[in-house]
This record gives sequence, C-alpha cells and structure tokens, in this order.
Amino acid sequence: MGKVRRRMALTGMFATLGGLFTRGDADATPGQPDPLSRLRVVNLAHVHDPDRTNGFPGDPPFILETVATIPEDGFYLQYVKQGEHTGTHWGVPAHFNEGERFADQLDAQDLFLPAVKIDVRQLVRGNDDYAITIEDIKRWERRNGRIQPGTAIIFWTGWQDRWGTPAFPNLDDQGRIHQPGLSIEAMHWLLDTGRLGERGSLGTDTFGADVGIDETFTVSTLLFHERRISLEVLANLEKLPTRGAWILVGGPINRRGSGSPASIFALIPPD
Amino acid sequence: MGKVRRRMALTGMFATLGGLFTRGDADATPGQPDPLSRLRVVNLAHVHDPDRTNGFPGDPPFILETVATIPEDGFYLQYVKQGEHTGTHWGVPAHFNEGERFADQLDAQDLFLPAVKIDVRQLVRGNDDYAITIEDIKRWERRNGRIQPGTAIIFWTGWQDRWGTPAFPNLDDQGRIHQPGLSIEAMHWLLDTGRLGERGSLGTDTFGADVGIDETFTVSTLLFHERRISLEVLANLEKLPTRGAWILVGGPINRRGSGSPASIFALIPPD
Repeated sequence: MGKVRRRMALTGMFATLGGLFTRGDADATPGQPDPLSRLRVVNLAHVHDPDRTNGFPGDPPFILETVATIPEDGFYLQYVKQGEHTGTHWGVPAHFNEGERFADQLDAQDLFLPAVKIDVRQLVRGNDDYAITIEDIKRWERRNGRIQPGTAIIFWTGWQDRWGTPAFPNLDDQGRIHQPGLSIEAMHWLLDTGRLGERGSLGTDTFGADVGIDETFTVSTLLFHERRISLEVLANLEKLPTRGAWILVGGPINRRGSGSPASIFALIPPD
Repeated sequence: MGKVRRRMALTGMFATLGGLFTRGDADATPGQPDPLSRLRVVNLAHVHDPDRTNGFPGDPPFILETVATIPEDGFYLQYVKQGEHTGTHWGVPAHFNEGERFADQLDAQDLFLPAVKIDVRQLVRGNDDYAITIEDIKRWERRNGRIQPGTAIIFWTGWQDRWGTPAFPNLDDQGRIHQPGLSIEAMHWLLDTGRLGERGSLGTDTFGADVGIDETFTVSTLLFHERRISLEVLANLEKLPTRGAWILVGGPINRRGSGSPASIFALIPPD
C-alpha cells in the first residue's frame, strides 16, 4: 500500500478512534467501527499436544486424559497434567532466583510488552551452538532503531520448525542440548545499557535464551530479576513483524507460579 | 478530562500512530511513544490457587505440587494437575456439542472480541436464581447502544466476591448450584437477532451462563456452536468498562481441548 493510501486509511481510523474515546459521552456512536478491530492477533504458541511436545530433559510427564464425554456425561472435558514450563510457556523471576517474584506477584502490565524480532536464522545455520553477539544486535539496531527499555526481545532461530522431532532438543550422546542462544556478553550489554529494563523479556523459539551447551544458565539467571519474564518455545514467528507489534502473555496465573503453558499473542497494528 | 483536552491528547496520539504505522519506511522514528502503550491491560482472572478454587461439582482434583526447588535443582517448578474448566477459564463448542470445534480448531481472532459489561448485581440481589431477561438487556442497550455481532457479552453478577467460599457454588441440601444466569428466552433472542453471531461469547463471574438450577444447561448448549466461546469464573469485573474494551483470552490451546484455565485480559483504551 502506497504512502498516500496508507495515510488515507489512517485518517479513517483516527475518526473512529475519536468515536471510541468519547464512549462515555451522550453523543457517543456505539455502532461505529472500532479501531481495536483493526489489530491483528497471532498466537505465537504451538498447540499443546503430548504427542508433539518435546519435554525439557527431566520435566515431569505431560498428559491429556479425557475424563468426560458428551454421550456419557453430557459434556466433554480433559484432565491435564503438566509442568509449568511445558510446551510454549512463559517464565517468571522465581523460576531461577530465590526471593524474586512468582507469577502472582507480577502485574498484567508486565505481560504486555512491545516486541522486536531479531532474525538469527542465517547466523545459526551450520552452528547449533551459536551465541548471539553484541554486534549482531547492533547490526539489527542500525536497520531498525534502538531497542527501548521494557521490550520483549524475540530471537527467531528457526528452531520452531523442529518442534515435535528429536532435532528440537538436539541432544548429543552425553545428553546435552544443542541450541543457539544469547551470549553472556550480549546479555550483560542488554542489561547495562538499559535495553532490558525493570520490565522486559527475552523470547525464543528454542527451550530458552541460553545457548544449549551453557549448563550454567547464566543468561536466564541474569534475566530473571525485577519484573522481567521469559517467553520460550515460541511458534509462528514468521508472522511476527520485525517491530511494531506488542505481545500479551496468557496462561493461568498460578499461586507461587514459576510461569505457565500459555497462548502468547502478538497484537499487530495494520500495515 | 474535558472534551477539548481529550481531543488534544488524541491529536498527539494520532501523530505517534502515524509514526508507528510507517514503521516499514526509511523515515520511521522508532524512538517515538507507541500508541499501543496507552492501552491498559487488566486480567479478569482469579489467581489459580487450589486453596481458593471452588471446583464445579464432579470436577477432577486441582493440585499444584512443587517438584523442583532452587537449592535442590537449581530452578523452581510446579507440577499442575487440573481439569480444563478449573478456576477462571474459557470453553469451546466441543465442550457441549459433538461435531463442534475443539480449542485447536479455533483461530486467535476468535479469542479477541469487543466486550460489553452488563451489571446485574442489583437485579440478582435477594434472588440467587435470577434469570436475566430480554428486557434487562434492552434496558442496557437504551443507555449504551445495540450489542454488535461478535461481542463478548459479560454479566457482572457480583459472584466474583464469593470466590473461595461456599457461597460461590451456593449448593442447597440436594447439592444443586444456585447462581444467577441468562434466561433461555434471552439466549434465543441474542441468537435470533444476531447479537451473538458466528463469533462471540457469554461471560460471567459465576460457573457459567446458565442459571444454576437449570440442569438442562440449555443456554450453554445453544452458545457452543460455530466459533462462540464461554468465559467463566471471571474476576475484577469492576475494572472492565461498560463498553469500549476488548477481551483477549489466553490459556494454552490443548489438542482436542475443551477450553483451558486462562488469563482473560481486558484491553482498555484511554479515557
């Protein structure tokens, strides 16, 4: 869409925004089109399916059991057994650091963040242990602008396409995971420069932001403080724009939760 | 805020919207404030806590079990066992009707709906079996405008304040639930007049939209077709505006899911 046509479309949208924001007034026009209706919503989650879910080594079993059916009971229901970090999920500070916040100590606003997508698929090709560098992120910023504090920084490694196969955990014969992730240096730089603030997130289509062979989990340990969260095992990242979208993290808020399996939505403004 | 000041604020917002929506262009200004940042997000869900969760009679047990701790394992994790309709949750057509859609057969867009709130707290006072009438809804519409197709119609009964106590299921000595709900006549009217369309939802802070003593579940049976969903055991409804907000339903999308425990967010535009 050319710039002029886009501007015209926006003019129409602004008019309806005006109608929306006067909704408390007597002259509100509730039948008008609603600008929020122009947001596209994409679920960045895999279907939560035991047959296709690669468990993180050591995770408790994930089971869906049909416990009621319409012919027998008049309704249909499954019983779910799963760890809080099963399939696409989010994680909270208390997952890695004692004294930090549980899920029920975060606010809804902590789960609603502007999102940037850094496509590292070319960088990781041929090196399953690739560690994303400061320079990789700076290169992205030269094209797309500086990452603002409180952003969900989402790495698209391509691992989403391996989901449901042994190539996702990608274990070697010592049982170690091989997946790309963020270098420890780049993690310190994101924190030291304020790109990750009190709020914010690292997201990835792998098991987590750490390089698989780093069994110290230093990146996650640094992430999980204040109100920062992780987004793990993301899917459908080809549908997330490079910037301009926001993410909203669903999933139940468990008492003393470490996170939960979730729909993780991208809210995408019109082009 | 007066109308003139509101208009001025909107002008500023439109300018930044322009910046946002040209994000693909070379002249984009990524450092600018982002209009989506002006949306307020409220979670219309109770904390998912076995000690405070009123189970629907017959539901399988809800258990949170700590299976890993930081001193022992280096990370903290709970194992969750629950029915798909435990605590605040959403329901899908296959929950009640064979041949209708499971959770993994709906789209993200089916979970993102404009919301209206109908406050029936005064109507149900003194009558726990109150059935909301067509006239009750028409009275709401005379003040607030006609309900559009594809809306989440949310009834605020006040039951949210009973959560975690025996007054929530409110069982009589025959074990029957007493809770207010939608009359069958009003449900037919919502469908016949297109107020509930192919998409849309009934939401409530009770166990569900049926009057508790109606053990035929006629309202739910009529609701659960096409792409319509239910929102049950809602909370924080005092924070949901009468209209103008949208809801977005989180929770994992289970394979052949009947719904799931979820964060159910209200996205609220600025006043």
